[in-house]
Amino acid sequence: MTNWTEMDTYAKKWIKQAGDLIKKSFSGSLTIQTKSNANDLVTDIDKGTEQFFIKKIHEKYPDHRILGEEGYGDTLKDLKGIVWIIDPIDGTMNFIHQKRNFAISIGIYEDGVGKIGLIYDVVHDELYHAMKGEGAYLNNDKLPDLAPGQVSEAIIGINATWVTENKRIDPSLLAPLIKAARGTRSYGSAAIEMAYVASGRLDAYISLRLAPWDYGAGIILIEELGGVTSTLKGESISIESQTSVFVGKPGVHEEILQTYLKGGNW
Amino acid sequence: MTNWTEMDTYAKKWIKQAGDLIKKSFSGSLTIQTKSNANDLVTDIDKGTEQFFIKKIHEKYPDHRILGEEGYGDTLKDLKGIVWIIDPIDGTMNFIHQKRNFAISIGIYEDGVGKIGLIYDVVHDELYHAMKGEGAYLNNDKLPDLAPGQVSEAIIGINATWVTENKRIDPSLLAPLIKAARGTRSYGSAAIEMAYVASGRLDAYISLRLAPWDYGAGIILIEELGGVTSTLKGESISIESQTSVFVGKPGVHEEILQTYLKGGNW
Repeated sequence: MTNWTEMDTYAKKWIKQAGDLIKKSFSGSLTIQTKSNANDLVTDIDKGTEQFFIKKIHEKYPDHRILGEEGYGDTLKDLKGIVWIIDPIDGTMNFIHQKRNFAISIGIYEDGVGKIGLIYDVVHDELYHAMKGEGAYLNNDKLPDLAPGQVSEAIIGINATWVTENKRIDPSLLAPLIKAARGTRSYGSAAIEMAYVASGRLDAYISLRLAPWDYGAGIILIEELGGVTSTLKGESISIESQTSVFVGKPGVHEEILQTYLKGGNW
Repeated sequence: MTNWTEMDTYAKKWIKQAGDLIKKSFSGSLTIQTKSNANDLVTDIDKGTEQFFIKKIHEKYPDHRILGEEGYGDTLKDLKGIVWIIDPIDGTMNFIHQKRNFAISIGIYEDGVGKIGLIYDVVHDELYHAMKGEGAYLNNDKLPDLAPGQVSEAIIGINATWVTENKRIDPSLLAPLIKAARGTRSYGSAAIEMAYVASGRLDAYISLRLAPWDYGAGIILIEELGGVTSTLKGESISIESQTSVFVGKPGVHEEILQTYLKGGNW
C-alpha cells in the first residue's frame, strides 16, 4: 500500500532543503552554460539540485522513477508506477538575471494520474502544495476553491511572445484577448505562473510550449482547486511530451476557449 | 539651506510607516471604487495613504508642495520650489488581485530637478532609495552602477498591450524587439519595473503612457546608477504631464532607440 502522506512529507522536506542549498549558493559565483540558444540557460546549481532530488528519492523509494529537466533521471517509455516529474529550477533566466522569481516544481504521478503537486518559490519562501483530494495549500494556509470569473475582470499570464510573430500560433488570435482582459502579466516561470493561478493572483495562464516538468505540479494544484486545465485547443494535457498549456479559473477558461480560440484556423 | 539628509530620513520613515498601515489594512475588507474604466481601480487604502503623506509633509514642511495621484495634494502650475510627487499605491490592480507586487513611489524635486527617489515594494519589504549624487540603495545594500548591455542578452519589461492594437503606438514597431530580446516580463507596476531596472533585474522598461507619479521616483534612481531615461522618441522626460517612458541600462537603451524606434513613422 502506497503511503502518500509519508511521500508528501518527504517531498516537502526535500524541496525545502533544496531551496536552502540554492539560497546558499547565491554567495558563490554562477557558472553559466549555454544550451542550444541564449534563452535556455542552465547552471551548475540547476544540475546539482536535480541530482540532490534523485539521490534522495532513490535512497528512500528505489522503485520510483524520475523525469527531470536536466536529464539525470530515468529514460521513460511510459508513466507506469510512481513517477516524480521534477524541474529543479523553473525560470532559469530569472534565476540568473534576478536571483528570484524561480521555483522548484515537483509533480508525483501514479500510472499517469497526478497525486502530489509542489511548487516552491524559493526566495519568497512560498510553498504551494496539494495532495489529490486533500485540498491545496500555500504554506500553511488552505487555498479556497477558484470562483468562476470572466475575461473582462481577469488578469492573464501571457508572454508578449505569443502575440508577436512566433512559430507556434498566429499572433492575431490572442491579440483580442489582450485587449479584452483587465490586464496581462508575465513572470517568466511557468511554475510560478501556475501557482499564481492556483492562489488567484492570476485568473488564467497561457503558454504555447512547455515540457512536462514545467507544468507537472501546476496542473495538480489547479485541478485540486476546481480550476480548468487543457491545451490551447481545449484538449487534455498529456504529461508525456511538450505541449501548449492553458489553465484558468472556471468561466474565464471557457470564455477564452469559446471566444478567442475555437474556430481559429490553427 | 535645505537639509536634504533630514528630508531623506523623514521620507524613509514615512514610507515605511505607510507600508505598515497598508499591510495592516489587508485584514480589513477592500472597498473598491471604479474610476473611468475597469482597469483603473482605486481603493480607500490608496486615498488614505496619500492623505497620510500629505499630513506628514504639511506638518514638517509647510512650504513644500505635493503632487499626488489621488488628487488630495496641490494643484500645480509649475514645479518651482520643492515638490513631492507621490503615488500612494502604484500597481493598484496587483494590490487588489494579488495583495502584493505594488509599491509606494515618492520623488522629491527642487525646481524640477530630481533630488530624492524612493520606491517601496511593501509586501517584499524592498526599499529602493537614492539621493542625487549620493548613490542608490536597495534597503541597506548599495546598488552597483548599471553596466552596458545589449538587446540579445536583455530582459525587457514591456506589457503585451504595446505589441497588440492600441491607441499609442503601431504594434509592429516594438514586435521585432520582443523577438530580439532574451526575454520579456510584465509586472503591472511601473514603479516596481523601474526599481527592477535600477537593481539590474530588468535591463530596460517601456511604457507608452505614464503619469508623473508613476515615474517620478524611478527616473531619479535609474539616472543615479548611470541608466538612461527618455521618452520613446528619445526625448527628455517631462515630469509635468503624461508621457511615454523608456528607461534602460547603457547600450541596451541606445540599441533599442536606434534599431527599433528611430525612423519609425510615428
